[in-house]
Amino acid sequence: MMEKLDLITFGRAAVDLNATEYNRPMEETMTFTKYVGGSPANIAIGTSKLGLNVGMIAKVSDDQHGNFVIDYMKKSGVDTSYIKKDTEGRKIGLTFTEIKSPEECSILMYRDNAADLYLSVSDFDDEYIKRADTILISGTSLSQSPSREAALHAVDVAKRNGVEVIFELDYRPYTWKSEQESAVYMTTVARMADIVIGTRDEFDVMENGEGNSDEETVKELFEHSPQLIVIKHGVKGSRAFTKDGEVIEGTIYETKVLKTFGAGDSFASGFIYALKNDKSIKEALQYGSAAASIVVSKHSSSDAMPTVADIENLMNSHVG
Amino acid sequence: MMEKLDLITFGRAAVDLNATEYNRPMEETMTFTKYVGGSPANIAIGTSKLGLNVGMIAKVSDDQHGNFVIDYMKKSGVDTSYIKKDTEGRKIGLTFTEIKSPEECSILMYRDNAADLYLSVSDFDDEYIKRADTILISGTSLSQSPSREAALHAVDVAKRNGVEVIFELDYRPYTWKSEQESAVYMTTVARMADIVIGTRDEFDVMENGEGNSDEETVKELFEHSPQLIVIKHGVKGSRAFTKDGEVIEGTIYETKVLKTFGAGDSFASGFIYALKNDKSIKEALQYGSAAASIVVSKHSSSDAMPTVADIENLMNSHVG
Amino acid sequence: MMEKLDLITFGRAAVDLNATEYNRPMEETMTFTKYVGGSPANIAIGTSKLGLNVGMIAKVSDDQHGNFVIDYMKKSGVDTSYIKKDTEGRKIGLTFTEIKSPEECSILMYRDNAADLYLSVSDFDDEYIKRADTILISGTSLSQSPSREAALHAVDVAKRNGVEVIFELDYRPYTWKSEQESAVYMTTVARMADIVIGTRDEFDVMENGEGNSDEETVKELFEHSPQLIVIKHGVKGSRAFTKDGEVIEGTIYETKVLKTFGAGDSFASGFIYALKNDKSIKEALQYGSAAASIVVSKHSSSDAMPTVADIENLMNSHVG
Amino acid sequence: MMEKLDLITFGRAAVDLNATEYNRPMEETMTFTKYVGGSPANIAIGTSKLGLNVGMIAKVSDDQHGNFVIDYMKKSGVDTSYIKKDTEGRKIGLTFTEIKSPEECSILMYRDNAADLYLSVSDFDDEYIKRADTILISGTSLSQSPSREAALHAVDVAKRNGVEVIFELDYRPYTWKSEQESAVYMTTVARMADIVIGTRDEFDVMENGEGNSDEETVKELFEHSPQLIVIKHGVKGSRAFTKDGEVIEGTIYETKVLKTFGAGDSFASGFIYALKNDKSIKEALQYGSAAASIVVSKHSSSDAMPTVADIENLMNSHVG
Repeated sequence: MMEKLDLITFGRAAVDLNATEYNRPMEETMTFTKYVGGSPANIAIGTSKLGLNVGMIAKVSDDQHGNFVIDYMKKSGVDTSYIKKDTEGRKIGLTFTEIKSPEECSILMYRDNAADLYLSVSDFDDEYIKRADTILISGTSLSQSPSREAALHAVDVAKRNGVEVIFELDYRPYTWKSEQESAVYMTTVARMADIVIGTRDEFDVMENGEGNSDEETVKELFEHSPQLIVIKHGVKGSRAFTKDGEVIEGTIYETKVLKTFGAGDSFASGFIYALKNDKSIKEALQYGSAAASIVVSKHSSSDAMPTVADIENLMNSHVG
Repeated sequence: MMEKLDLITFGRAAVDLNATEYNRPMEETMTFTKYVGGSPANIAIGTSKLGLNVGMIAKVSDDQHGNFVIDYMKKSGVDTSYIKKDTEGRKIGLTFTEIKSPEECSILMYRDNAADLYLSVSDFDDEYIKRADTILISGTSLSQSPSREAALHAVDVAKRNGVEVIFELDYRPYTWKSEQESAVYMTTVARMADIVIGTRDEFDVMENGEGNSDEETVKELFEHSPQLIVIKHGVKGSRAFTKDGEVIEGTIYETKVLKTFGAGDSFASGFIYALKNDKSIKEALQYGSAAASIVVSKHSSSDAMPTVADIENLMNSHVG
Repeated sequence: MMEKLDLITFGRAAVDLNATEYNRPMEETMTFTKYVGGSPANIAIGTSKLGLNVGMIAKVSDDQHGNFVIDYMKKSGVDTSYIKKDTEGRKIGLTFTEIKSPEECSILMYRDNAADLYLSVSDFDDEYIKRADTILISGTSLSQSPSREAALHAVDVAKRNGVEVIFELDYRPYTWKSEQESAVYMTTVARMADIVIGTRDEFDVMENGEGNSDEETVKELFEHSPQLIVIKHGVKGSRAFTKDGEVIEGTIYETKVLKTFGAGDSFASGFIYALKNDKSIKEALQYGSAAASIVVSKHSSSDAMPTVADIENLMNSHVG
Repeated sequence: MMEKLDLITFGRAAVDLNATEYNRPMEETMTFTKYVGGSPANIAIGTSKLGLNVGMIAKVSDDQHGNFVIDYMKKSGVDTSYIKKDTEGRKIGLTFTEIKSPEECSILMYRDNAADLYLSVSDFDDEYIKRADTILISGTSLSQSPSREAALHAVDVAKRNGVEVIFELDYRPYTWKSEQESAVYMTTVARMADIVIGTRDEFDVMENGEGNSDEETVKELFEHSPQLIVIKHGVKGSRAFTKDGEVIEGTIYETKVLKTFGAGDSFASGFIYALKNDKSIKEALQYGSAAASIVVSKHSSSDAMPTVADIENLMNSHVG
């Protein structure tokens, strides 16, 4: 019998090329260091490193960069059986990061015809999804066809088979054709998910979403499937809402920030790990917050993912 | 104050070019007669002719064919305020019909970059939808972007504002990229609709749909929004299912069939007309059936749409 | 041994749908009559009817319209061995004609992804071209890839093997992405051709062409391959220029014009027929002019192509 | 009055990301060093460094990578007035290099919708071309529209205005849709050029080219515009052919090869510099060969471009 998985993440695996020399404009950066990137790939690595049994459904390039990503994820303990290689010569997405200062980070992305957008229904078996307790869908996977339909189908399979669906909004405007498309699909999947996680800005993107308070946002979503909604407010911390009306506030751990990239992925990793280990929602917010705090102080988003000990040390050092 | 509409149909308006000389292969047909076509356009004309107050949201070509369609629909009493003209030079879809015999009808379609597929969210106002009691979405409008997102958005607006949603499956395989895409989007909209109408074959297209009995199909859909589902079985008649477990059988009216085109659109017209006029579901099935019987005996799908008197005469002539 | 061909025409074969009821706007035309269309198809039919041994290299749809075109051309005596059917479901181009009055004719074209634009190098054998004395390239075949490269390759094969190249400019702006593209490719092929035929407007489209006199136009082209250039000036007649400096004027035959379509194709047919039958250039211009005069007085562009007797009767009736 | 330019290069400017740690598979390379790349960009830099007055017509991304390329070229003395920035968000091409050993070098390219392929006729003025003695067209610029038409137009302008045209075949199969397209366009431009430079393999790509001897290749081209043709045979040296029948052999300078990239661009730079400085063809071949020898021993293709002193020192050290 096939082993059960705690979590499958679904969507984008990419390569980050981080400025080796930073605190300067990218024009003056002459060397770049290579890391695995992409929100659901980072969360797979992050949660695996925290001890969960994790797989990923993804599509990478059939070249040296694709090999690197698969190798790295394997070494991180992630089940890579359904990380497929694109057979049409499509390349893996690239993200060059520019770190002028902790406050001024920007990215330069290569996403045209990126392999991840071509993940399709025929790249995975419904049976694989059934083996998981939870599937995490990344918003970016909805941005283009056929990845969009693959994600919608994966959600359908999960729902029919009692697999919990986490929707990480992961909204990246440049991957979408229009705000109207974003609104339509983000809303459709958010309504079908059990848990929805995103920043305040990301929730604003949904149908009828702009200008809503957190309370209005969750009221509308709770009319559908969601049971738990996490809205992140950056340095102001995060707020979790439950369907039965509870509101739980999470606080942040101050740190010396190197760059802001990777905060969301590490937050999700810590948060999901804690929930799977029967922590309370309040504790889960703090695990997420601590993980994020650690990653933003380091150079990468994947390689920097903390261990449980790292997280708990940080949390303990702030007690009292 | 703006007038209320009984019905808005949403999607494809096209031109049919029907073989003037029939009962022969199209190669030997030398002249073609022009009619308005497209399932939701036909239903708008059909229900308007039956006396409903009807509008249509559509996009046609900015040329003589587009003008013809708008003119014809206006003359049929349809509100055409939101039948927009494509500004990028796209052409209206064409359907050449070949009628070799009543049993052997086929069509030759020009659908590449058809104007209707470019209907977008910005082509209509949410306010227009709010003016209607009911909006009818045609499955073909889901087959490509941006018409797909426009349809999903229209359904979202209708749902938020208490406008009833009828989903006419209108599944035309050649307009879709793959069966997987069809399954994903047909299922998504069917679940959000209040009333779903289609042939048995069309319901088979949905997620997990193939090989299901009518009872399995409706069981699954009734877990979501639908209240009423009509499954058509061709010459065997139709079956209506209600959420509270009722099953109503409709019978057909035999006629001398000229061609099978237009049967579904006239059925929907008669059925919707009857429901809006407080007929029972059983009666509505018979109105639909009578309307279909009349249209398949004539040359066109739009121009042949019957009046209430035509339908009731036929129904009365079959009583007892 | 394979039979020699007097002429191969290369490019577009299409279907014309001519208003059956004319002298009115197309909106009010309710029936259309079907004919073969497309400049090089018309010229193949026209020259075949005049007695030349003619073949055509083309690509049509694999449907009833494609069958009709092939059948009609076969019946007209054209060798159709290299009229291929598109295997990707692409449709044949359509031209609806509107004849408001002899002076106000317009057309409504369906050209998106038309089968003829997908004619490719692998659809024909170089050997077939070598069997011909002359190949006629139509400008429209240069408007998009891969038809463009197929045409350039056909010219290359012809030039290497001593096959005469006639370039019929046949410039249709709507089939081109930009005037810059038109200029580049029209010029490239005109320079490689032996004979170039076009209207004054069409010559204006070439690189550095606008505002040139006939004399400047031909001077530039005579620096390259062309030996004979025909510039048509509508009702003012036509002018032929030879490389060695001769200028020959052609006159028109007045007629009762029904529509202007088809004038160019019939002119080319008569002109080429006459050259192949050792008429003088002056005589060839008159054969072309007479053929054009006959076609513009009739309803179609292909079916109306005259016989030698028709042409010579007209010419004789104007002598003296 | 505007300054005269010795040379304008036309086409691709890109970014090379060369493995910082080499002699290993790219999967194990963790850092990459950034350089300007792209054959005509390298030749512009190379010839400018040798003292020619050089400009470039190109299109780069409107981002940090595009800025870097323009800055670097400016610093190298190249006139960048017509290096335009893409306004549609297209990215500059990337080339990751893998150096497993001097014999096993490979590249991983990001070329999808690369900015250089969108260089169009409207991005430059004909007047700029008229200011140059020579324009060098790179074969890659012919691989897609609209760059293809821009290149064909540039050649047309050059020819009409007495500007010498050098065609550097620079054949990169992965940028082309098919070998048939390559053959058609490479041949068309080669016939219009004054000087053609390429490897034996590149000449094989042309129409009717495969399996030809050098003598057959040049015989065919000399029937058209070319006056001088250089065919490179790798370690066996190069051969120059003149229209009047001369054949000149060039020899190579042995060196410790780090990688083979950049050999062609440095050869062209040295060769063109020498011709512009009234060296003999034999000498020009040796300048090219010496420049190539220097670049293949170093890490980059652009930054490693030698000075005149570097080249002449190498040449002198091999005399006698």
